[in-house]
Amino acid sequence: MKMTAQIDKTHLEPLRQRLAEFAATRDWDQFHSPKNLSMALIGEAAELVEHFQWLTQAQSATLSAEKHQAVSQELADILIYLIRIADKLDVDLIQAAWDKTELNESRYPADKVRGDARRAKEYS
Amino acid sequence: MKMTAQIDKTHLEPLRQRLAEFAATRDWDQFHSPKNLSMALIGEAAELVEHFQWLTQAQSATLSAEKHQAVSQELADILIYLIRIADKLDVDLIQAAWDKTELNESRYPADKVRGDARRAKEYS
Amino acid sequence: MKMTAQIDKTHLEPLRQRLAEFAATRDWDQFHSPKNLSMALIGEAAELVEHFQWLTQAQSATLSAEKHQAVSQELADILIYLIRIADKLDVDLIQAAWDKTELNESRYPADKVRGDARRAKEYS
Amino acid sequence: MKMTAQIDKTHLEPLRQRLAEFAATRDWDQFHSPKNLSMALIGEAAELVEHFQWLTQAQSATLSAEKHQAVSQELADILIYLIRIADKLDVDLIQAAWDKTELNESRYPADKVRGDARRAKEYS
Repeated sequence: MKMTAQIDKTHLEPLRQRLAEFAATRDWDQFHSPKNLSMALIGEAAELVEHFQWLTQAQSATLSAEKHQAVSQELADILIYLIRIADKLDVDLIQAAWDKTELNESRYPADKVRGDARRAKEYS
Repeated sequence: MKMTAQIDKTHLEPLRQRLAEFAATRDWDQFHSPKNLSMALIGEAAELVEHFQWLTQAQSATLSAEKHQAVSQELADILIYLIRIADKLDVDLIQAAWDKTELNESRYPADKVRGDARRAKEYS
Repeated sequence: MKMTAQIDKTHLEPLRQRLAEFAATRDWDQFHSPKNLSMALIGEAAELVEHFQWLTQAQSATLSAEKHQAVSQELADILIYLIRIADKLDVDLIQAAWDKTELNESRYPADKVRGDARRAKEYS
Repeated sequence: MKMTAQIDKTHLEPLRQRLAEFAATRDWDQFHSPKNLSMALIGEAAELVEHFQWLTQAQSATLSAEKHQAVSQELADILIYLIRIADKLDVDLIQAAWDKTELNESRYPADKVRGDARRAKEYS
């Protein structure tokens, strides 16, 4: 009997464990080098992009229920591979994202970049 | 005075809020359509891929400290844009990943795909 | 009666014209902004990557006839979108590639980078 | 003395040869498996996407001279890797693109898809 109802789905850790178990049960760790996983991840990212490629920006923000469901699955796939790579490389994803956000805070001071989306590398 | 020490960094929700605030403060929501964010996300995914493109699979699993730090930042960037898109589309990322994992469980029965990494679409 | 046998298939120009006509006949130019075409192109690049993601490097160089055919189609798709973007932006693709190769020649002097695949940005 | 003025820059073949020589001179063929080259290619595709990610579709069609030059170089990089992969797999790129265009002609009959950019897989 599955007891999934008792899994804490607000943390990444139980999901990380579930995905590690999923791969191990299938003997897929042999394929899951960071190199290969990065290729799988960008494949999922591209499927996300595909959903939006012929839409206007406004259309991309107001998806039909069916499209919304499909896009949700792509986002899920990206998160799944992201967690797998982080697991393989022993990276704490959420901590890394907080650290990067602090860095972005200093790189893009609000009063200097307000309303301006030029890429960081283009700033002098 | 910053109180970041008190932020719960085991959940995605505080990070989602922080990133929403980061964009709002910079008046960047005007650029953050799901379409545009998907382009930014795949750009970060590609930077991850770049780190691995000339490495063997084995090398990709044993990174130098410097490279590990750089890769961690790319993973962080991907998570950041993933959270932003999910936020814009009102998707619960972790729930979506659990749902997708259930689906994958039925699509790829362990006893049928063990040791075999062919893509789902190639199965008959 | 189609006279495709008389088309010169060693130049890009007849192909560029054919693709422009293909889009015009379908009233697809309205969708073919460089922005959108870049999204379509990366989608095709990702389909190429997908073919290789679980293969070893050696396997990727020795494809079955069926896989070789599928990969050829992905390469074709990439070229098609590449030509479309170049057309929209009035870029001479082959000239641009020669120019870039000259630049690469000076950026990566053979006697300095022999056997070393580190990325340009990592050179000091 | 370089005689580049005499190179035929309207065909892909001289460029293919030049790129093969470029890699051979640097002993880079050891890195240039189709798998690795596909990763390099998508990296260049992503750099193209990055140029457009915060632009509107209209802005992406009217680039400044500086941006146009940068985008041309990205297109060149994509073509360079595309030619390298095709060379490694012995694919005639232009022929493959003509073949694919014939296929697209039958998949997307003009009178059925006029003004409609839904992806092929979404058609019933």
